[in-house]
Amino acid sequence: MILLRREIGEALRQERQSQGRTLRDVSAAAAVSLGYLSELERGEKEASSEMLSAICGALELPLSSFLSTVSDRVAETEAMSAPVQLPVASARAARSAA
Amino acid sequence: MILLRREIGEALRQERQSQGRTLRDVSAAAAVSLGYLSELERGEKEASSEMLSAICGALELPLSSFLSTVSDRVAETEAMSAPVQLPVASARAARSAA
Repeated sequence: MILLRREIGEALRQERQSQGRTLRDVSAAAAVSLGYLSELERGEKEASSEMLSAICGALELPLSSFLSTVSDRVAETEAMSAPVQLPVASARAARSAA
Repeated sequence: MILLRREIGEALRQERQSQGRTLRDVSAAAAVSLGYLSELERGEKEASSEMLSAICGALELPLSSFLSTVSDRVAETEAMSAPVQLPVASARAARSAA
C-alpha cells in the first residue's frame, strides 16, 4: 500500500535539502518542534493540515505546488508497483514447454 | 489558512457523488465506518494515510489522481485568497481626491 505520509515526508525533506536548510531552521520558521518535523520527514507521523500549511509557509512553497510534487511522487511509486503482465505468447510457450 | 483536510473532504465528496454512490456504499467498500467517512467529507477529521488509500481504492481512483485533483482545488483557493493589489494610479487618484 502506498502511504501518503511517507511520500509527504520524503517530499518535505527533499524540498528542505534542496534549499540547503537545516531541520532546526525550518522547524523554527514553521513554529513546530524539531522532533516533530523530523518524524514527519521520516514518514512516521501524519501531518495535521495546520502543521503542513505552516511548514509549506516556512519553505515558501504554495501548498498546491507541494501537493503537485507529492502527486508526481505517488504516480511514480504507483507505476513501479503496478502488477507485471506476462505477454500471452510467453505464457503459452511456458505451458507447452512444461 | 487553507486547510488540506477541507480540500480533501470536498474532493472525496465530489468524486463519490459524481459516481452516484452513497456514503454507505463507499464506506462499506473501504471498510471504514460511515460516520468517519462523513466526518472526512466535511473536513472535520484528518484522514490517516491508510484510510485515504482505502477510500481511494473503494472509489477506484489512483491516489496520485486524487492528489492531483486536490492540488488543483488548493491552487484555486490560493488564487481566490491572494492579496488584492490596487493599481498605483487608482491609489494616487484616491489620495489626491482625499
